[in-house]
Amino acid sequence: MKYLEDMVVGSEVHFGDYAVTREEVLEFARKYDPQPFHLSDEAAAKTHFGRMSASGWHTCAMTMSVLVSYLQRDPQAGLGSPGCDELRWKVPVYPGDTLHVYGKLVEVTPSRSKPNLGSVRTEMTVKNQHDQVVMSFTSIVLMLRRPAAA
Amino acid sequence: MKYLEDMVVGSEVHFGDYAVTREEVLEFARKYDPQPFHLSDEAAAKTHFGRMSASGWHTCAMTMSVLVSYLQRDPQAGLGSPGCDELRWKVPVYPGDTLHVYGKLVEVTPSRSKPNLGSVRTEMTVKNQHDQVVMSFTSIVLMLRRPAAA
Repeated sequence: MKYLEDMVVGSEVHFGDYAVTREEVLEFARKYDPQPFHLSDEAAAKTHFGRMSASGWHTCAMTMSVLVSYLQRDPQAGLGSPGCDELRWKVPVYPGDTLHVYGKLVEVTPSRSKPNLGSVRTEMTVKNQHDQVVMSFTSIVLMLRRPAAA
Repeated sequence: MKYLEDMVVGSEVHFGDYAVTREEVLEFARKYDPQPFHLSDEAAAKTHFGRMSASGWHTCAMTMSVLVSYLQRDPQAGLGSPGCDELRWKVPVYPGDTLHVYGKLVEVTPSRSKPNLGSVRTEMTVKNQHDQVVMSFTSIVLMLRRPAAA
């Protein structure tokens, strides 16, 4: 288990990858983001998307899936996230794309009021198979400090 | 159809509501955010969540669903979103909650380089049935300017 003290500012990690399928793009869009350019190539052809693209929130969800898989292999004493900053959808995500999820740890801050925890900021970058950055954001995660030896 | 010129800084809107079901919280969490506190009351009881809560990304998706339903009733010449700022998950969202989605338009900026469009910033607030703010963020949407009369 990794604790706040194990988080090294400047360290970079490849969290993993995600294959985007047409079925999944449609399923998410129908349920949560049924804008025409997320539902059909014909409608998307009339927009700057060009062809059917994934909802930006779906890209967030797929990225989260990659992160959780990583944390199952390499557990951290995380306490959940209060949010994220500067979320940007830069290039459309299309069915057939493969997402590659990277993070660079930029800040570790022990809590002033709670001696047993702190927060970690990570610059997240998601690229497609063409090495284009499709999404970026800064994640904030609360994390426990290492417990004193028993 | 509403265009950039129709967007009034300071205007506020209630976009709509969303009933959060246990089935949907589980379905989303299993697929995209299978952290224990999103999957069972027993695991969540050991954390500050207290009981099974929705993934923050699921709350984003449900909020988007409310926004798209609103835009289907009151169309805007939107061109998609480049992202959002200061996304914060403030209070857990639980099965059985009802989400109420509000927005306050805070900025309208004509594009300097593209004379036919601009961007709109909206402070989004999502409250639960207890009037607690569960999530907030600032959305950014690109929007067409009104075409010149033919």
